[in-house]
Amino acid sequence: MASSLRSLLPRSSNSLLTRQLPAKCLAQRRSYATPNLQAPDASDAKLKAIDLSQLQTTKTTTPKDLIPHDQLIFGRTFTDHMLSLEWTAGEGWLAPHITPYQNLSLDPATCVLHYAFEAFEGMKAYKDKSGQVRLFRPDKNMARLNKSSARIALPTFDGDTFIELLKEFCRVEERFIPSLYIRPNIIGTQRTLGVGPPGSALLYVIASPVGPYYPTGFKAISLEATTYAVRAWPGGVGASKLGANYAPCIVPQMQAAQRGFHQNLWLFEDVDGATGRKEDFVTEVGTMNLFACVVGRDGRKELMTAPLDGTILEGVVRDSILALARERLVPEGWKVSERRFTMREIAEAADEGRLMEVFGSGTAAVVAPVRSIGWKGRLIGCGLPEDREVGEVTKRMKDWIEGIQYGEEEHPWSVKI
Amino acid sequence: MASSLRSLLPRSSNSLLTRQLPAKCLAQRRSYATPNLQAPDASDAKLKAIDLSQLQTTKTTTPKDLIPHDQLIFGRTFTDHMLSLEWTAGEGWLAPHITPYQNLSLDPATCVLHYAFEAFEGMKAYKDKSGQVRLFRPDKNMARLNKSSARIALPTFDGDTFIELLKEFCRVEERFIPSLYIRPNIIGTQRTLGVGPPGSALLYVIASPVGPYYPTGFKAISLEATTYAVRAWPGGVGASKLGANYAPCIVPQMQAAQRGFHQNLWLFEDVDGATGRKEDFVTEVGTMNLFACVVGRDGRKELMTAPLDGTILEGVVRDSILALARERLVPEGWKVSERRFTMREIAEAADEGRLMEVFGSGTAAVVAPVRSIGWKGRLIGCGLPEDREVGEVTKRMKDWIEGIQYGEEEHPWSVKI
Repeated sequence: MASSLRSLLPRSSNSLLTRQLPAKCLAQRRSYATPNLQAPDASDAKLKAIDLSQLQTTKTTTPKDLIPHDQLIFGRTFTDHMLSLEWTAGEGWLAPHITPYQNLSLDPATCVLHYAFEAFEGMKAYKDKSGQVRLFRPDKNMARLNKSSARIALPTFDGDTFIELLKEFCRVEERFIPSLYIRPNIIGTQRTLGVGPPGSALLYVIASPVGPYYPTGFKAISLEATTYAVRAWPGGVGASKLGANYAPCIVPQMQAAQRGFHQNLWLFEDVDGATGRKEDFVTEVGTMNLFACVVGRDGRKELMTAPLDGTILEGVVRDSILALARERLVPEGWKVSERRFTMREIAEAADEGRLMEVFGSGTAAVVAPVRSIGWKGRLIGCGLPEDREVGEVTKRMKDWIEGIQYGEEEHPWSVKI
Repeated sequence: MASSLRSLLPRSSNSLLTRQLPAKCLAQRRSYATPNLQAPDASDAKLKAIDLSQLQTTKTTTPKDLIPHDQLIFGRTFTDHMLSLEWTAGEGWLAPHITPYQNLSLDPATCVLHYAFEAFEGMKAYKDKSGQVRLFRPDKNMARLNKSSARIALPTFDGDTFIELLKEFCRVEERFIPSLYIRPNIIGTQRTLGVGPPGSALLYVIASPVGPYYPTGFKAISLEATTYAVRAWPGGVGASKLGANYAPCIVPQMQAAQRGFHQNLWLFEDVDGATGRKEDFVTEVGTMNLFACVVGRDGRKELMTAPLDGTILEGVVRDSILALARERLVPEGWKVSERRFTMREIAEAADEGRLMEVFGSGTAAVVAPVRSIGWKGRLIGCGLPEDREVGEVTKRMKDWIEGIQYGEEEHPWSVKI
């Protein structure tokens, strides 16, 4: 079919068909609630899957000095090695390599540099008291990276096999861990300017040793609700961890910072079905998901976060918090909700003394307590007394999750390497 | 102010303040109609502007063979050289270089590869009958690149100076021209994973010799209206020429191609103020702007295209078509409109025999005639008789614009190098 289509295209046009389209891609119906829109899958049966047995490791001859744990800055220094795998549309996944950390040599026409063919993940490795290195829910990161990659016509891969490669990479870099931020990244490497699905890609992993996020204890942050720019839209790509979602967010964050806030809060203006009024729905904060703890007018405590409607990044920590809340807070009488909620609702809860606490969630910080939100000229206090930096639920969530991450609590989410 | 803000940030956080924020960034009011959102400007008086006199040129010792004009494929082969300029937040623009075309050496943590700090332009150089090389409205491309760049916290530059560099680059590459596609691209080059404004960038230009877009005459294309994904939205970055706007568009284009259409047509679903009904507003086609010629129910001919509301790329050819239409079609009785219009309006005009022609516009093709649009299960004929590949207005626009581009008509838009 692709070849007959190709003959329909005007010569010299930017062909969209630089690679064969398999027949299994079906027509989609109008549904903005479907964040799973995928490329015709590149993981053709003819193409090679990732082959663990082909891994080639070349160790560095100039190992780096370790930086003291308390002097580490997030993402600024990297370990000795990197893991990389090339993919081509003709062959599939080529042999994986662990090599010394080194520059990539890219043709200036490479499509990642022009059209943002790039998707990434953020993960961490932790060393427990017995010296065992652990990953946290790596299957979730693999599933999300595959979904992100497919959404922009980059290849997918077998997540379990890739986790085995990650484990080997962590073994090689073990001396950098008590905790290590791991960054898998996939980029399109086709060297032509026609806008189409990349015929080649590079999946690589680098890692940055990280210190404690809050070395001197929690510091609650202030947020500015952004009312002049919108991060994501139904039918867009806001649910995927694409490079494309990040650069456009910097200016609003800088503007929030300039007005004295730590981060910006992303809203989505929409009609509230219940009232027919336009409202500012709360979505995400900076690069984190957002949770609010509110006492309802019925006196019941509710932990809420925005639903996965395609405009919210599907955070692994978000998912973990929801699961832990359902397991451990619901028996205490809490209601746990994935639902749309508005700034008006937050402001009213604050006015009536019902806003208990607000926090962000993400891989880097696990949780980030929020002191206040600036919205439409007012500053909403989020329930923290002036002399406290963290609320009770926020603190408990961090303790629970870090307990699992560092193996203090044995849990299926923590995967030993 | 920035330093006092910095002290408020939690240690080890992803600082958003890696570079000094000047005081001139003012608060913005809620206005999704403002596509001009800019970064705190990096072109600080302390920083160096581009200095033309510092240009260093190193010619290749291995010039490429010229490919016959009719065998050229868009964006597949490149000229002998590239132009490049580095920028740093501390110094500003460093000396420009013309060097042999060569790979970039990028740290795998470089921010363009993770967060899509990238913006580009598409321009063309043409040789007229007397052998004079010309650019078409390069000031428009410079203005747009600066706007795109500022929107994602990349540096801006003096457009006139950069045009002088482009001219010099074209002189060096003159042997590749009767027509040359020129690709300025700017990328963030900071080598850290913290999400913040890049502290360094690279602005570079590569060029691809191109043949005629329609070597055997016009070929009208078919479009599939995409109803399951959205390209751009109010408050987003759809008006800027960012890499971030391209990768997410590939899958819908592949799906349209698989169903036998040449390209997809982007819609924006919104309430029509006049009727209160939800409608599919027409925005852009693939990587082009879209125009429709309709006879109104009052018998008056109207050339229409979507307005610059922040969801439409501000095409240079789009702007040129509007200007020429106002100058040359309005005296013939045409109405020329930048206004929102719906698929329903197009379908009704087609049903009533009032749809005259539809065409896309962009730098590569200038104009692309549209034969039909698939929308909600029906195929709308766009006014072209079966035995014709182009409508009259489309053809006249191409002739007018190419006449100016190739210097057959002297016009201020055509800039001699």
